[in-house]
Amino acid sequence: MPYINRGGVSTYYETYGKGFPIVFLHPFSTNGYIWTFQTFSFARTNQCVVIDERGHGRSDKPQQGYAIKEIAADVVAVLDALKINTAVLVGNSIGGMIAMQLNLDAPDRVAGNVILSSGTNLGAGMPPEAAQAFQKDLVGAFSGLVDNAIAARTKRERPEVVDMIKSVFLVEENFPHYVFFASASDPAGVFNWNISDRLKDIKKPTLVLAGEEDQATPVAANKFLADNIPGAQLKVFKDVGHFFQIERPHEFNAELQQFLKQVTA
Amino acid sequence: MPYINRGGVSTYYETYGKGFPIVFLHPFSTNGYIWTFQTFSFARTNQCVVIDERGHGRSDKPQQGYAIKEIAADVVAVLDALKINTAVLVGNSIGGMIAMQLNLDAPDRVAGNVILSSGTNLGAGMPPEAAQAFQKDLVGAFSGLVDNAIAARTKRERPEVVDMIKSVFLVEENFPHYVFFASASDPAGVFNWNISDRLKDIKKPTLVLAGEEDQATPVAANKFLADNIPGAQLKVFKDVGHFFQIERPHEFNAELQQFLKQVTA
Repeated sequence: MPYINRGGVSTYYETYGKGFPIVFLHPFSTNGYIWTFQTFSFARTNQCVVIDERGHGRSDKPQQGYAIKEIAADVVAVLDALKINTAVLVGNSIGGMIAMQLNLDAPDRVAGNVILSSGTNLGAGMPPEAAQAFQKDLVGAFSGLVDNAIAARTKRERPEVVDMIKSVFLVEENFPHYVFFASASDPAGVFNWNISDRLKDIKKPTLVLAGEEDQATPVAANKFLADNIPGAQLKVFKDVGHFFQIERPHEFNAELQQFLKQVTA
Repeated sequence: MPYINRGGVSTYYETYGKGFPIVFLHPFSTNGYIWTFQTFSFARTNQCVVIDERGHGRSDKPQQGYAIKEIAADVVAVLDALKINTAVLVGNSIGGMIAMQLNLDAPDRVAGNVILSSGTNLGAGMPPEAAQAFQKDLVGAFSGLVDNAIAARTKRERPEVVDMIKSVFLVEENFPHYVFFASASDPAGVFNWNISDRLKDIKKPTLVLAGEEDQATPVAANKFLADNIPGAQLKVFKDVGHFFQIERPHEFNAELQQFLKQVTA
């Protein structure tokens, strides 16, 4: 399976199917596996592109270079390599940030956005104790973050989701801890990235999906996006946390299907 | 991510984690993504190797060469490339056949086997109408096979599993239909492979897991394996069909965890 290379950093991607392209962008510390229940189902009717963002999974993991803008440029390079003009971007958490940044930097490559449990300027809402906790006990602090980011029903009915999300963070081949610190300290990285006053420049149809029980990127953070992106729609889901696509895959897929119909009609 | 090459055919694999190695071998027409809820969870304590078998996913898809023995040799080549002496093999359906064949051809590379919903000489139990149906309407016949191979509870609570299993069969980049016919017609391929009289030569600890609602490789086919592999244990699960690892991941992982403890103690 192929890679693109930008400035010496290789980004891994896979592509399945033909039809209007969809690009899937995963949350921080995970990888393309989180889209297992989307990739093949949507590949029956669409070209599905799944990317492991730099620092994650099968992609290179440089010591630094984790500005959201850099990762968005990696995604554009994947689109170039696949000769895809425009795609629907589906981004969860940092994946949503990458999608929004791509709207600003290369708006003609975007047909629409599904922003799933994301936000901007997230670090500003983070209490200083949280940052200290990450420094002191990264694994414990992250584990607590995950516990607060997944819905009670998911924990009860699908405990393997909790286990998988915690595990990808612990498996060094997937996500070495220096990537966490390099990303967290980057002034334009996952926690410091702030496009609050540029959300108005995102002009493509945008659907923001939030989970009621997500304490990592709470409903308010997602509502802020929907309120400021012109014409964006917000939908909030019960029994869902930060990872709708794997907590309630069937329901998430129905939402994505409906959005695709609207955008590609 | 790396490939091995045997006789011009490239086999894709991924490896995560350190510790006693586990090799995951997927069912016919799927790919390594079916182990999403095992790969990273077990990689916290074990080296997890996930292979896309030839004809599937990210591996090469030759026009012919689908004897189980060939695929088992691909797996040995992956072990060689990773300098793995012995591993626990976890194989579902055709993946279980590949594991059993590997026990016969390279017994010193095997520490133990988890054979999940598999069998031998499966074609003998297939009515001639079934073979005709595959020729006449492959997609419809396969779809019916999947419907009969997944538990009612899974269909009700996790419809995305049904959708994913049906979809991987339909996505040409994952599994072109000529691979089905080349495999089905191979005298030593998935349907014709018969080691009934050699099961006694499998000497490593073996756990056979069967789903009560699996009509693709019914309990009887799995019981035959357990009855004929010396010392093998059979466990049959309610509310489970052909795909225990993704129908009830949490319960499957507990079984695998317990087996690993016994074998690697």
